[in-house]
Order: sequence, then C-alpha cells, then structure tokens
Amino acid sequence: MSAYEALKSSFHRIACLDEAGAMLSWDAAAMMPEGGAEARGEQLAVLAGLSHEFLCAPEVGENLSQAHVQTAWDSQNLALMKEAHLRATALPRDLVEAQVRAGRACESIWRAARKISDFAAVRPALTEVVCLAREGAVILGEALGLSPYDALMSQYQRGISSAEVNAIFARYEAFLRDALPLAEALQARRAHQVLPSGPYPEAVQAELARRLAAAVGLNFNAARLDVSAHPFCGGTPTDIRITTRYDETDFCAALMGVLHETGHALYEQNLPAAWARQPVGAAAGMAMHESQSLIIEMQAVRSDAYLSYLAPLAAEAFGKEITLAGLKHRLRRVERSFIRVEADEMTYPAHVFLRFQLEQALLSGDLAVADLPGAWNEGFKKLLGIIPPDDARGCLQDIHWFDGAIGYFPSYTLGAMAAAQLMAAARKALPDLDAALAQGDLSPLISWLSIHVHRLGASAGFNEILQSATGETLNPEYFEAHLTVRYLG
Amino acid sequence: MSAYEALKSSFHRIACLDEAGAMLSWDAAAMMPEGGAEARGEQLAVLAGLSHEFLCAPEVGENLSQAHVQTAWDSQNLALMKEAHLRATALPRDLVEAQVRAGRACESIWRAARKISDFAAVRPALTEVVCLAREGAVILGEALGLSPYDALMSQYQRGISSAEVNAIFARYEAFLRDALPLAEALQARRAHQVLPSGPYPEAVQAELARRLAAAVGLNFNAARLDVSAHPFCGGTPTDIRITTRYDETDFCAALMGVLHETGHALYEQNLPAAWARQPVGAAAGMAMHESQSLIIEMQAVRSDAYLSYLAPLAAEAFGKEITLAGLKHRLRRVERSFIRVEADEMTYPAHVFLRFQLEQALLSGDLAVADLPGAWNEGFKKLLGIIPPDDARGCLQDIHWFDGAIGYFPSYTLGAMAAAQLMAAARKALPDLDAALAQGDLSPLISWLSIHVHRLGASAGFNEILQSATGETLNPEYFEAHLTVRYLG
Repeated sequence: MSAYEALKSSFHRIACLDEAGAMLSWDAAAMMPEGGAEARGEQLAVLAGLSHEFLCAPEVGENLSQAHVQTAWDSQNLALMKEAHLRATALPRDLVEAQVRAGRACESIWRAARKISDFAAVRPALTEVVCLAREGAVILGEALGLSPYDALMSQYQRGISSAEVNAIFARYEAFLRDALPLAEALQARRAHQVLPSGPYPEAVQAELARRLAAAVGLNFNAARLDVSAHPFCGGTPTDIRITTRYDETDFCAALMGVLHETGHALYEQNLPAAWARQPVGAAAGMAMHESQSLIIEMQAVRSDAYLSYLAPLAAEAFGKEITLAGLKHRLRRVERSFIRVEADEMTYPAHVFLRFQLEQALLSGDLAVADLPGAWNEGFKKLLGIIPPDDARGCLQDIHWFDGAIGYFPSYTLGAMAAAQLMAAARKALPDLDAALAQGDLSPLISWLSIHVHRLGASAGFNEILQSATGETLNPEYFEAHLTVRYLG
Repeated sequence: MSAYEALKSSFHRIACLDEAGAMLSWDAAAMMPEGGAEARGEQLAVLAGLSHEFLCAPEVGENLSQAHVQTAWDSQNLALMKEAHLRATALPRDLVEAQVRAGRACESIWRAARKISDFAAVRPALTEVVCLAREGAVILGEALGLSPYDALMSQYQRGISSAEVNAIFARYEAFLRDALPLAEALQARRAHQVLPSGPYPEAVQAELARRLAAAVGLNFNAARLDVSAHPFCGGTPTDIRITTRYDETDFCAALMGVLHETGHALYEQNLPAAWARQPVGAAAGMAMHESQSLIIEMQAVRSDAYLSYLAPLAAEAFGKEITLAGLKHRLRRVERSFIRVEADEMTYPAHVFLRFQLEQALLSGDLAVADLPGAWNEGFKKLLGIIPPDDARGCLQDIHWFDGAIGYFPSYTLGAMAAAQLMAAARKALPDLDAALAQGDLSPLISWLSIHVHRLGASAGFNEILQSATGETLNPEYFEAHLTVRYLG
C-alpha cells in the first residue's frame, strides 16, 4: 500500500468514527431519554478521543511526508489531510486539555449567569477561556502561516481572510445606515395583513413540512425529520437527520426551519460520493454550508414566487385563510432587535459584524473581557441605534465564546451574502427560475447548485467556489441588491 | 497506575465502543432510513474492529499476567477479562476472517434458499460454516479447558455444561411424552372463549404497552419503546431501547412482546452501576437474561392473577369485551407446531432440544450437513409426533447456524426453566405475590429479582446464581410443576 493509500485508509477510519459520533449526537438531541446523558457523554468522548488519536498518529505524519499524488482532487485531499494533521498536532496536549476544561467550566457558569444577566459572574471564567484561545491561536497561526484570528476562523471556513471579511462588513455597515430607516418607513406605510391565529396542529405542520422538504428535493430514503429543542442538520450524507420544533401558534417558524435545514441536507446528500469519508469529499466549510441553507430558505422559499405557491397549500392544510400578503407580512419584516437568532435578514449581519469585531479585539487583547459589556452596547447602538436593556439580551446571549468558539460568527453572514450571489448567478443561468418557484419546483435551482457547489466538495475554498460558480469572489453587492429589491422596492 | 487499573481503563474504553455499536444497531433497526444501511455497516465494522483490536492488544496480555486484586468481585472481574482476552486472541486471524466471510456468504444464500425451501442450495455454504466453526471450537476448547461444544456454548452462558443440559432435556422429553397429549385432551374439552376481532388501533396498543411496562417497573427516564421488524431489547443500562411491532388484528402479540423485553430491560437497568462497563458488571449470560424476560412474560404476566387485572384494563382501553377467559384462551394454549418462535411454552423446549442435539452432532462430525434435513424431520417426529412439510418449516427456519452461531439455542430453554425455578423461590419468599399480581403490581417480584439476580451482574455463573437465589442449581422439576399447574390442572 502506498503512503497515500495508507492515509486514505486512516482518514476513512477516522470519518467512520466521526460519523458514529454524529449519529449519537443526533440521537442525544432527538431520541435519547434523559437518563442516557452521562453514558452518552462518555461514548462521545471515547469516539472523539480515538478520532483525534488516529489523526495525530506518527504514521500519519510519516505517510504525509512521503505521499505522492497525481490528480488535482488527490492533491487537494492530501493538502486537507496535512492541514488536519497539523491542526491536531500543533497544540501541546496540556493546552488542549486546559482549553476543554476551561470551556466546559465557563459554559456551565454562563448558563446560570445568562439567566440572571450577571456578566460579572462569568467574567473570570471567560477571561481564562479567551487567554487559552489566544495562546492556541498564536501557535496555530504560526504553524499554518496565518494570523491568530485567521487560524481560528479558517477552521470553520477556508478560503477567505478576515481582512476580506472586514472590508465586506464595512461596506454593509454603510449600506445599512440608509437602508434600514428606509425599509422601516416603507414598512410602516404598508397595510398589514396578519396571519390567522392558531392553533396550527403539530401533526399538520409536520406533514406539510415533510411534503415541502421532499418537493424541494430531500430524499427521505436517506433522511429523517424529527423534533429537537435546537433544530439542526446532522447525520451523514446517506443518512441525513434534520430536526425542528413546533409551535402551534405559528406554523411559519417550524416550516422555515425545516426548509433551512433541508438546504443543509441537500448539500450533504449531493456531496461527491466517490470521495466519501475523505477530506476533499466533505462540504467546503460552514459559510458555504450556510449559503446552501439560506439560498433555499431566504432566496427561494421567501420569494414572491414561492410564497404565492405556498399560501394556498398552507391554507388548505390548516383550513385557514392564509394569503400571500399574510405570509409576506410574517416572513419579510425588518425590525431592530436585540437577539441575533430572531433577527431578520437585513439586520442579522449587524449582529454578526459586532461579534466579529469584538472577538478579534478580545483575541488580540485590544479589548479586555471586563470591558466587553460596554463595548457590546456601544457597538450595538452604533450599528442598530438601540441599546440592550441588559447583558442577557446583550453580550451574554450566545453560547459561542463561553464555550471557547471564536471565529465562527462570520460564517453566518458570509453564507447569507454567498446565497444572494449564487442566486443571482442561478437566475442568470435559469431564466425560468421564478416560474418554477411559483410551481413549488426547486429542481432547476438544486441541479444548478449541485453542479456548481455540492459536487465540488472541499476541492476548492470559499472564494474559489464562488469564483467558478458566479464569475467573481464574494461580492456583497448581490446581497445589497437582494435586500433592496425585497425591502426597498 | 497498577496493571489492574490499566485493565479496567482498557475495558471501560472497549465497553464505550460496544455501547456506541449497540446504539447504532438499535438505530439501524428502529430509525434509520434505508439509504443509511451501507454506511452504517461500515461504521459498525470500524467500531467492532477497534473493540476487538483493543481486547487483543499486547499490553492487555501483559497487564493480565501482572494484575493483582483483593476483593471477590475484582477477582471475578479479572477472570472475565482473562477469558475475554483469551477468546479474542486464541483463534488465528485467518480463521476468524474465514469464519466471518463464510457466515456472511452462507446467511445471504440461506435467505434465498429458505424462501423456496431449497436446502441443497445452501448445503455447501453451511458445510463450510460448520467446518470452520469446528476448527475454531477445537482451538477455543483447548485454550479454555472445555469440550469444543462447551467452548461455544459458554460464550453465550457461562456456568453450566452441555452434560448438565443433556440430562435436563432428557428429563423434559420424558415429561412431555405424557404431558402433551394430556394437555391437548384437557384443552379440547374446555369451552373456548375467543377474543373479539380487531381492529386494535396501534396507538392504543402502544399506549397500553407503555403504561403496563412502566407499571412493571421500566423507568422511561432511561428507556424508550419503539417499533422494529424484529423486536429486541438493546441500548445500555442507563438508556435501554426496547422495540416491538404491532398487528391491529391482535393486541396480545405486541403486548406480550413488550412485557418480555421489559424483563430484559429491568435486568439491564438494575445491573450494579458501580461496576458499569466492567465485565463483572454485565449480565450473567444469555440464559439468565432469557430467564428475566420469561419470568415477567410467562410466569408473572400470564398468571391467572395478572390476567384478571389485565382483562378489564384492556377492555377499557380498546372498548371491547376482553375477558379473563378470552385472554387465557389466547395466551395459554398448547399446540404442536413447526416454527420455534411461534411455539407455546410447553412445546418450545422440544424445538430447542432438537437443535441442541443436532448442533452437537454437526460440530462433532457425527452428523453430516447433507443428512441434516432427514435428522431434523426424524427428531421432530420423535419429539412432537409431526413431520415438517418442507425444510423452510424445518431445518431452514432459523438464521443461527447459517450465520455461524452454534451453541446459542440451549439458552432459550435454560432461561424458561430458570424462570420457573426463580418464580417458585420468589413465591416462597413473598407469600402475597399473587395478591400483588392481581393488582398489576410486580414490584415485590422485581425487588426480589433485583437482589437475587440483577445486582449480582456477572459476579457468579448461571448455576451459582440459581444456587444462591433458590437453594439449588437448575432443577427442571420447577418448570414441570409450572406446566402441570397451568396446563394439566
């Protein structure tokens, strides 16, 4: 067996362990009785520990130094293997263990502190988490030839730098300054048509969601839809597990959630099967993944065309007067608000931009943890003109930092912007796209995405995929144009 | 870390991998979409391969030779570790791989052959499986100081020999010769009261089954009940997964199935938590496990007392006239039949005895595979007086041999007999047991079983546990007495 074949075999085994972990994590969220939590934690720790051990194994390092490959895909596969091995071995074991311990402790304190909006209570633990993250980021950055922050960010999304992201956000900030008040003014003038009040029975919602997800292209011979407290898309490409939660007073939240996760699921189902369980056969990153969920949920499903298809369907399913105007009022409303996960698509990037700036400052040390609440509120006021009434609705709202995850946030907005750019390219390539959407038919869009994104796996980075799919790297103009048409028209 | 501590840590990790495998197997049976099958097979193979690799590791062997222990439980734990390591390492890798390959190939041929009752089609493959099983059994027997057959049988149930089992079956055969015709004659004279015809809605069955399982003592904070094609009890002690299947024309099959699996589940839930993931903390074997399902299903639930409690409950749940007499007619009927899994409790051991005799003869070479159908039919006629109309209803009906599993069958009947013996001892210790059963209250029985069986884990063998719980090793008189009271009274 050649060195490269041996590597492929190692990564195949690692992927199988990771798949087992993914399935058990889904089970923990969707199926497991409470009593199983402790044992599940140990099972997952053993699987993750072995996966890490195999990735760090000396023979992987030796094979990496001896492997030779022919094709471009193999070459990229090998590069991704090298990066994964480097990431896994660059940090001293003591540091990794300290990071895990600190993150676990901080997360637990944060859960209590958020409830009573007590930032001071979690400040020492967060300080420790940030210190250790910084120490790791410096080492990783040196190993990978990246700045410390880029070393963290690139573990979520390769192929775009924080400098590029900074420029994109600066432009968005300028756009928002004028666009938001204008959108609000237009919205205030428009007649409201509120959707009928519930109940919208859970079983009817689930049936409708399943039917629409299948119509969008989800293959239920290789997928399930279940319920969990926090909706997600898990599982593996041939066995996708998406989840949602139902609110009987509002069918839209679950339905949009399912179609969002369906976008993630389609990406996974369409990854190149010939490269399954190899690094190059995986998705291209979290931002690209988010672009695939948002192009379905935000670009396609919330379009006039699709909503005009959805309204009579929903009306029939629930036996209520659900109109296009009602859906538009519910699903396309701009509002300054404090909580990121509840934000609309126009203001959402502001929430992300704030976090992106603050986490860079925390990591560099320019911002002390003690000054975070003040900096948060000041930044929030600057971006959205309002000040959170307390830290629970401010800097304590997200788990990410308290859990040690720094560098993830930009992916949300990069995904939203890439979705707009990809949709614009798809529209150009598919002149009948809106007519299809008006029939509830997403297959032309999915086929286009499959060819230009899904089947590429991780053979290219974020900007490379956009370049080949749309003719340019990430260009925020498309997102602005999308918001302009939808909210300022 | 002492050698013994290192061993405990190794076995803990192995157990975590096995738990992950158990959960993923449950998922495959109860949840997984069809498309996931291939990937799941690979995930399970990786987990099983690692578990085996860790069990065979040279440092396990070294630690086993150096470990010292103090307490009786540690001593038994160490002995079980030694046996597991010996079993895993005794066979040459070539042989194990050949066995796996042959079993897989044979099972696949068997599935087709059984459908068209074509024994000749599977004969060569079964010959190969038996040959390889024999080769392995000889090596294992030498390593463990057991006869080849006992070496196979003891992997399913330790602490009882095939010589003991032979004597027990011989006695049962003599009992059955008179008891069966007598039971049939009595049954023919009795007035029939047939249960009302369905439909019995699946949702109502599921609700009743869940309610009764909980009343029997199953803790649903640490358990689930779902649907699968072949009912089983899986999962782990703090996260038990039982399954059943529903037939809307007959609520009894699913209900008895659930209560049977509940017996297995209670054994697992009550295992000694302090020894979780150590060999001594596991169940004492398959026969002991079957005794715990059968003491619930056959001894307690099918008793007059419990059925008198169940009848009005079921009548109310289904809104039908379900009487004690109807339940007795459905659940306590003796019948000569060809299929083991459909057999009643009086004739079931005859099905097992036949297989026990034949598999010993196959393993020793006294019976050629080619002569199996004839030997089967002859033996069946001798035991039950009827001849299978074809091999599909004869020697092709069970997967076990075709899959390479020899030595498992006796566990079913040892379990049934142990259940009767344990119930007799529990009745002696708990004079009000029937009064409790008549209230649907199994808690006195479960508490007794927990103390005398469950909490012992694998600290003692089959006969040792019976000895300490009932004052004697397995004595088939109790089973005969049970059948006599129930069917010949």
